[in-house]
Amino acid sequence: MAVQTVATTTDSADTVDLGPASALACRECGERFALGPIFACEACFGPLEVAYDLPSGDPEDLRKRIESGPENIWRYAPLLPVPADVASKPNLNPGFTKLVQADNLARELGVTGGLWVKDDSGNPTHSFKDRVVAQAIEAARAFGFTTLSCSSTGNLAGAVGAAAARAGFRSCVFIPHDLEQGKVVMAAVYGGELVGIEGNYDDVNRFCSELIGDPAGEGWGFVNVNLRPYYAEGSKTLAYEICEQLGWRLPDQIVIPIASGSQLTKIDKGLQELVKLGLVEDRPYKIFGAQAEGCSPVSAAFKAGHDVVRPQKPDTIAKSLAIGNPADGPYVLDICRRTGGAVEDVTDEEIVDAIKLLARTEGIFTETAGGTTLGVARKLIEAGVIDPSLTTVVVNTGDGLKTLDAVAPTTGMSAVIRPNLDSFREAGLA
Amino acid sequence: MAVQTVATTTDSADTVDLGPASALACRECGERFALGPIFACEACFGPLEVAYDLPSGDPEDLRKRIESGPENIWRYAPLLPVPADVASKPNLNPGFTKLVQADNLARELGVTGGLWVKDDSGNPTHSFKDRVVAQAIEAARAFGFTTLSCSSTGNLAGAVGAAAARAGFRSCVFIPHDLEQGKVVMAAVYGGELVGIEGNYDDVNRFCSELIGDPAGEGWGFVNVNLRPYYAEGSKTLAYEICEQLGWRLPDQIVIPIASGSQLTKIDKGLQELVKLGLVEDRPYKIFGAQAEGCSPVSAAFKAGHDVVRPQKPDTIAKSLAIGNPADGPYVLDICRRTGGAVEDVTDEEIVDAIKLLARTEGIFTETAGGTTLGVARKLIEAGVIDPSLTTVVVNTGDGLKTLDAVAPTTGMSAVIRPNLDSFREAGLA
Ligand SMILES: [Zn+2]
Ligand SMILES: [Zn+2]
Repeated sequence: MAVQTVATTTDSADTVDLGPASALACRECGERFALGPIFACEACFGPLEVAYDLPSGDPEDLRKRIESGPENIWRYAPLLPVPADVASKPNLNPGFTKLVQADNLARELGVTGGLWVKDDSGNPTHSFKDRVVAQAIEAARAFGFTTLSCSSTGNLAGAVGAAAARAGFRSCVFIPHDLEQGKVVMAAVYGGELVGIEGNYDDVNRFCSELIGDPAGEGWGFVNVNLRPYYAEGSKTLAYEICEQLGWRLPDQIVIPIASGSQLTKIDKGLQELVKLGLVEDRPYKIFGAQAEGCSPVSAAFKAGHDVVRPQKPDTIAKSLAIGNPADGPYVLDICRRTGGAVEDVTDEEIVDAIKLLARTEGIFTETAGGTTLGVARKLIEAGVIDPSLTTVVVNTGDGLKTLDAVAPTTGMSAVIRPNLDSFREAGLA
Repeated sequence: MAVQTVATTTDSADTVDLGPASALACRECGERFALGPIFACEACFGPLEVAYDLPSGDPEDLRKRIESGPENIWRYAPLLPVPADVASKPNLNPGFTKLVQADNLARELGVTGGLWVKDDSGNPTHSFKDRVVAQAIEAARAFGFTTLSCSSTGNLAGAVGAAAARAGFRSCVFIPHDLEQGKVVMAAVYGGELVGIEGNYDDVNRFCSELIGDPAGEGWGFVNVNLRPYYAEGSKTLAYEICEQLGWRLPDQIVIPIASGSQLTKIDKGLQELVKLGLVEDRPYKIFGAQAEGCSPVSAAFKAGHDVVRPQKPDTIAKSLAIGNPADGPYVLDICRRTGGAVEDVTDEEIVDAIKLLARTEGIFTETAGGTTLGVARKLIEAGVIDPSLTTVVVNTGDGLKTLDAVAPTTGMSAVIRPNLDSFREAGLA
């Protein structure tokens, strides 16, 4: 695995055009590397992330440029690791999903300062994964990869399959062999290779790492491994969109689910960039992280006052958040503490309740991750940790159609009647 | 049922503000009625549709007004039966879905004149139904209804439940009691009443008609019965969006699925309005209707040269198109003949093939209705009926996640391997 995970600063990146992205920088030691399909620092093995030469000049010009751009993430191309002409390339063009002003929900929760749901179920394959995969696709193009790949427990497989199909890549995606049929169909329908691995998700990941280091994996871009630094940047667009949709304004409070923790850290990065660029006024904001009780290593560390995260064995219905050893856990702790936010967790029952609450009040059917986020928001509002008099944004990362099983046991018909008015009246429905 | 299905011209509509909607007009005899919750002509029992006082004046002004409107159907409020301030009311705000330039698909089908997919899976509940329900909601508000209702075999139930929740209506939706659990969950999660009727879809419809004529149904708006004239107008927005997204230009050819036929007739109405308003150049366009072989009454009539449609008993996987006696059938025949288009049907196998073709080429996973539409488009291109050198738009009405069963038997993993490179090589994947 070592061969291709690290690179030296002498690697040439002359032919790589990823717009404002200037280098990869180690998040631990700061060492910089040329742009390439690498993800770990050769000096300290810390994670790499994209560094930028961001646009300078009049913020008003940049704002106008963004506002006149396409109605998708590529309006923010000047702030992303993609070439300037990205919008002309075949891509699923995710993003610019609705920021729903949730007045009904706000009333139920007693929020008076304004409550919004950033609804990423509106993306092409109905989750925020489309944002990150879209970045990985452009990096793969830049590095000359011909096959797109990933390890997945479901959602990501579909997002990669769909994006690869549209962008003209071969795809070969690895999943545990015993995945539910519905998820297999959603991932396989795009026509790429879908390979079941006899083993659990850890085995799938181990195999992918082996493949990256082998000649058989040459020309393969693994979106969440050797393309991870680029991939992860896609979550910044959630921050950009939320602020633009609020009228170029930072929210006071934002609640974000934690799986690896990458989404939360990149949203914070995006908010800070907007401040630096002068696109929003610099004022305090608080970031809150949401976990399921059955997989709450970051929440546990937050509450215990620890800087490091102790791995857990996940057991929760929020399967897309079930990462027991989240790579970005320490960064999440740092951000939530620095901004004055918090990390909290909720039970599976509270997750289901929150899914139904959002559906009932706003007509938005969210998946278990969204239920986790709203459940935590509710808990923190009730505890007085989230201030109801301030602007609050809750991030909904995906669609309830993908986790029907979570609500099925407690969701059904109110009544079954015979097709006549007497039966209707007897059921007390009139 | 008679009492509330018809109305006289003396009914007062003084307090009803539905923007440019001026009256309901009988599509058969032309008789006009005041705006109200009625759907059949008292003179001839013909269907009623909304008549308008459309905006006059400089088309350029109207175009600018639309372009500066919200990124949803309400940008076209001046052309819809809704009050001018509709965008400020709680509503799911569907529409302005992607018009995807389908170059990969075009290459496979040999289309050189430009091929687009209007992808309505991007709507809030992932089908075009959100467009029509949104209109019904505003009509229900105008008429003072407090309960939203419908008969449904699945998709519409969810669309009504979601929209009612957000808009603050009670909802009570009727479905056959033996609907699949997944569809029940999708419809019930929004918290309204979901009532199973012991009987088939016809029994459900009969019961709803009975309820409309009974005091128990007072204050109830049935989106696809007594609000149907308003509801149906929502499909016009597909025409508006397609033309605006093509740069204010009519497509040469457009392929549309036929269930009741209402969508096709309203898209034609919308295209004609744009011409009349001077928003697009007046030039010929052809409309093509798509049915499944297992429910092809309109296609059969078209091929036989008949003006009337002979009912069929549906038997197809395209359940959302399975209306054996389509109310708008004769109008569809008229439109397809008048514009020089055609009506065609495809087998269930061709539907599944088309679903996979669209997924494989463009990364769009469509439901069986979309597979039907693309299947018919392919068949007509191969037959030389659709001209490959002209601009063609295919309407995708919904999402494949809702009809997973259709592709499940033929969609799965390419291989199952042990987690090592030898096993990977043996499977021929390297
Ligand atoms: Zn380092
Ligand atoms: Zn009449």
